[in-house]
Amino acid sequence: MRTTGGDEKPMMMKSYNVIIIGAGPAGLTAAIYAQRGGLNTLVLEKLAPGGQTLITERIENYPGFPEGVSGPQLSNLMQKQAKNLGMKYEQQEAKEIRLSGDKKIVTTDSGKEYNALGVIIATGGEPKRLGVEGEREFTGRGVSYCATCDAPFFKDEEILVVGGGDTAVEEALYLTKFAKKIHVVHRKGMLRAQKILQERLLSNPKAEIIWKSKVTKIYGEGKVEGILLKELERGKLRSLACSGVFIFIGLKPNTGFLGDLVELDKNGFVKTNPDMQTSVQGIFACGDVRGGSFKQIIAACGEGALAAHAIGRHLMRLQGTE
Amino acid sequence: MRTTGGDEKPMMMKSYNVIIIGAGPAGLTAAIYAQRGGLNTLVLEKLAPGGQTLITERIENYPGFPEGVSGPQLSNLMQKQAKNLGMKYEQQEAKEIRLSGDKKIVTTDSGKEYNALGVIIATGGEPKRLGVEGEREFTGRGVSYCATCDAPFFKDEEILVVGGGDTAVEEALYLTKFAKKIHVVHRKGMLRAQKILQERLLSNPKAEIIWKSKVTKIYGEGKVEGILLKELERGKLRSLACSGVFIFIGLKPNTGFLGDLVELDKNGFVKTNPDMQTSVQGIFACGDVRGGSFKQIIAACGEGALAAHAIGRHLMRLQGTE
Repeated sequence: MRTTGGDEKPMMMKSYNVIIIGAGPAGLTAAIYAQRGGLNTLVLEKLAPGGQTLITERIENYPGFPEGVSGPQLSNLMQKQAKNLGMKYEQQEAKEIRLSGDKKIVTTDSGKEYNALGVIIATGGEPKRLGVEGEREFTGRGVSYCATCDAPFFKDEEILVVGGGDTAVEEALYLTKFAKKIHVVHRKGMLRAQKILQERLLSNPKAEIIWKSKVTKIYGEGKVEGILLKELERGKLRSLACSGVFIFIGLKPNTGFLGDLVELDKNGFVKTNPDMQTSVQGIFACGDVRGGSFKQIIAACGEGALAAHAIGRHLMRLQGTE
Repeated sequence: MRTTGGDEKPMMMKSYNVIIIGAGPAGLTAAIYAQRGGLNTLVLEKLAPGGQTLITERIENYPGFPEGVSGPQLSNLMQKQAKNLGMKYEQQEAKEIRLSGDKKIVTTDSGKEYNALGVIIATGGEPKRLGVEGEREFTGRGVSYCATCDAPFFKDEEILVVGGGDTAVEEALYLTKFAKKIHVVHRKGMLRAQKILQERLLSNPKAEIIWKSKVTKIYGEGKVEGILLKELERGKLRSLACSGVFIFIGLKPNTGFLGDLVELDKNGFVKTNPDMQTSVQGIFACGDVRGGSFKQIIAACGEGALAAHAIGRHLMRLQGTE
């Protein structure tokens, strides 16, 4: 006969109704809704709550803050709200999700395991970085990865856009409405973007494309003042004065820990149905990590609320059939 | 961007890039995003900005307000934010949208006309009515669809709440602060509301739930004095004395002014694609009026942002092909 099996670790692990992985706006909103929905909720976050908002100096487009709000400030408010409602929070990185019947078991970097009937993946993504000197230093002070967020701060300024895909060209076109002059730097001699976008960019008097070149350094005093540019064919270096550097070379979704558990789209983002459910029942995704999501805080929050609501219904279905 | 091209009839009407109809959270967020996107934006609202939030006493689940916020307060903040960004605002009711090439012409109740290449329908919905004898007659004299508006008139009175969803339970809870006794009448044997709300109601000594029953008549002399109640299983009728009847049974989308311009779903809400575009190019919908929308402020805001973004791209396409 079996004794109180000390070997069977799963008996020791803490159970929740929902585990939310990631404490950016999507994850924290999901937590607010899940707790209000009577679900005992654990949020796991590898860094600090806030996700990408933490690197946003000033947010003007989150409704409810007419004077703007800093990313860390908004994240703090959301975290406080979720905590007031009873959210449990652990600073741990999720390393794996395993299925065990209807249960999902989440293992973290510290070796702990937690289980829940529902999991929400809200791990977001990270803009791909150029990896050049000055890039980190000036992020939020001239270096940006989001035109919608930051374009209005560069009215009548001279700015640089890095990239050659659809996003880079769309964002560059968008930026022409604000900036005095846009230089688009691309490594190749041809853009990757759709032709119609290319044509528009090429015919825009405010835009100029710098072909076969790359940024090697971003410099300034306290904020961006210019960049060093390398011509790839001749190896020539030159500097270019500008007050903004917008980098659009892709978003990397944080999905490494998922292995092949849920279906991803061709760009590596998590596929969901309109209720935010992934290919695995009881596992939901919302915010930037989700394929097709609009990379904006307010939209991520909306998806978080929806995912929490859907998970509540999922749990009710499970209870109903138990 | 095209202005009033005087080639057809020389038009007196004012041109905008985008006209947003409705100034609830969805419309105001769309305005914030449209203005930040460099689009000249007009918002038309028949009443006051805020939409349904105006009748919400306390909002606990809008992320960023850990202590909660009142509906009118949140609406004010959003309106201020959109105005800071340059939104034009007119208190007028949209009566019709006409197509004229790529242009949309919006006529208002005061006979004015405005045109734009893009329109966002964010007209929300209105509370559904029970459709029983006495309901219309006593509206404003005991029958109400807004607890925040009318609760103070029922101090220490006995009142009835009809419905079982989030709104019904939230409003019933709010009403317990005023009334002596609240009877919640629900057709089913189970509430639909979030669990946390249900628990609060069930544990409130002032509240009593009358299950599987419906109101069949509201009676009184000049004002509400009671109702007739039918037990649905046994068909038994009884009367219940009360001086107020608060009805929270759902939302009727405000789509009357659309005629058959855009496709509606079977419940009368506006159908859109995932980019919030309706069946007519250049006309978008977001928030409560949209079919399949999650009737929550945060989700409506997310949709508003998305609609504004999509309209920006629509206008860029039009420019590109001109």
